[in-house]
Amino acid sequence: MLTKNQTKRILSLSQKKYRYQQHLFVAEGPKVVQEFLEASYELVEILSTSDSYQSFGRVFTHISNQELKKISTLKTPNRVVAVFKIPEPKALDFSQLILAVDGLNNPGNLGTMIRLCDWFGVKDIVCSQDSVDCYNPKVIQSAMGSHARVNLTYLDLAEFLKSQTATFGTFMDGSSVYEKNVPQSGVVVVGNEANGISPKIEALVSQRLTIPRYGIQNKTESLNVANATAIILSEIRRQQRG
Amino acid sequence: MLTKNQTKRILSLSQKKYRYQQHLFVAEGPKVVQEFLEASYELVEILSTSDSYQSFGRVFTHISNQELKKISTLKTPNRVVAVFKIPEPKALDFSQLILAVDGLNNPGNLGTMIRLCDWFGVKDIVCSQDSVDCYNPKVIQSAMGSHARVNLTYLDLAEFLKSQTATFGTFMDGSSVYEKNVPQSGVVVVGNEANGISPKIEALVSQRLTIPRYGIQNKTESLNVANATAIILSEIRRQQRG
Repeated sequence: MLTKNQTKRILSLSQKKYRYQQHLFVAEGPKVVQEFLEASYELVEILSTSDSYQSFGRVFTHISNQELKKISTLKTPNRVVAVFKIPEPKALDFSQLILAVDGLNNPGNLGTMIRLCDWFGVKDIVCSQDSVDCYNPKVIQSAMGSHARVNLTYLDLAEFLKSQTATFGTFMDGSSVYEKNVPQSGVVVVGNEANGISPKIEALVSQRLTIPRYGIQNKTESLNVANATAIILSEIRRQQRG
Repeated sequence: MLTKNQTKRILSLSQKKYRYQQHLFVAEGPKVVQEFLEASYELVEILSTSDSYQSFGRVFTHISNQELKKISTLKTPNRVVAVFKIPEPKALDFSQLILAVDGLNNPGNLGTMIRLCDWFGVKDIVCSQDSVDCYNPKVIQSAMGSHARVNLTYLDLAEFLKSQTATFGTFMDGSSVYEKNVPQSGVVVVGNEANGISPKIEALVSQRLTIPRYGIQNKTESLNVANATAIILSEIRRQQRG
């Protein structure tokens, strides 16, 4: 049975402030929860309508469907809610390509980008401090467990880029991503949904990349940032395969 | 001032049944409405908190912010709501690449794919009858006006594919999209968010394409269908540019 305190505690974790006060986040649904368990995230508590999670012992609470609805942030709650410790970010691997995110707002977009990095084997994402938090419940759900294989670090992006030599940014103008040979290592910066890369960060980007537009009337204003990231990561991997 | 009848009529258009009974759809916000106006969609009525739309004469209704909220489907209503006639689909251009959509459910994904086709100059999207309706308000908003330059046709996808010679499908296995030379014309099929391409349609696809996965542990289950479409359209254009 769910206690009032549990309900309150779990619901509070949908707010960034409480997540970082307690260093905890919530994952939901068998698939996503399983991914975090397999990746050895530290489990704090697990609540489920199914007894298959009973093996977790004292941290397990059996709940009813009604109780699940109370603590779930999903439209269609799915059997299990788990609370994990937020891990410390790992050290960045500068020998590999790093994706940098400047002021990204939409949790669904960040989740999709974590999934893309997982697909294309990009191990590190660095995010400006004003980007959406990667432990936001919507980011967790849209990344579908890929957090377990992608290391996210929040930092002062301007300071970080100052120390980098190979920095690439995505803009409406620049060299075609199809022509440019990106190196094995380096940082690719993508920007905010509405405003793109901020002027402060733009000044620190050494190479401007663009995705050529083929529409006859050339009226499409922009590509969605997650789609642009998909195309650029795919193109980098294609070029690297030699 | 907004009448009860107007409110009822406009709200009814968020349902597919009423849209097709009346052959009408709703667009919102200055940017999206402007795109449909410029593309000569037939305007039926326009309601706005701003007098800048007064030049439309008898079809214009000045409304308050409160009234705008009543008829808007957006979280943040944005000044103008317009009702347009649903146009007849144009004839398909078989000399060009066609995107086919099999059972797509999510309106945001279809909207993003319309925007992608606009960017990459793909003029025709054909959709299976069970795909989400392209005049769904969420599709209209996420396509951001790209409907005006992309022709959408709903049809019996299996029957359609039977008459096509060059049909490509996106799967978890198949030839790498980086290697395969797709022709100038042909049909590229993408599937449903959860289940991919249906078995019936799969049997009608002559060439299987896949996006290579680079994640070390190879655990990412799949790419989001809009991201996969972005990568494939980009790759087709890159290969075609010679």
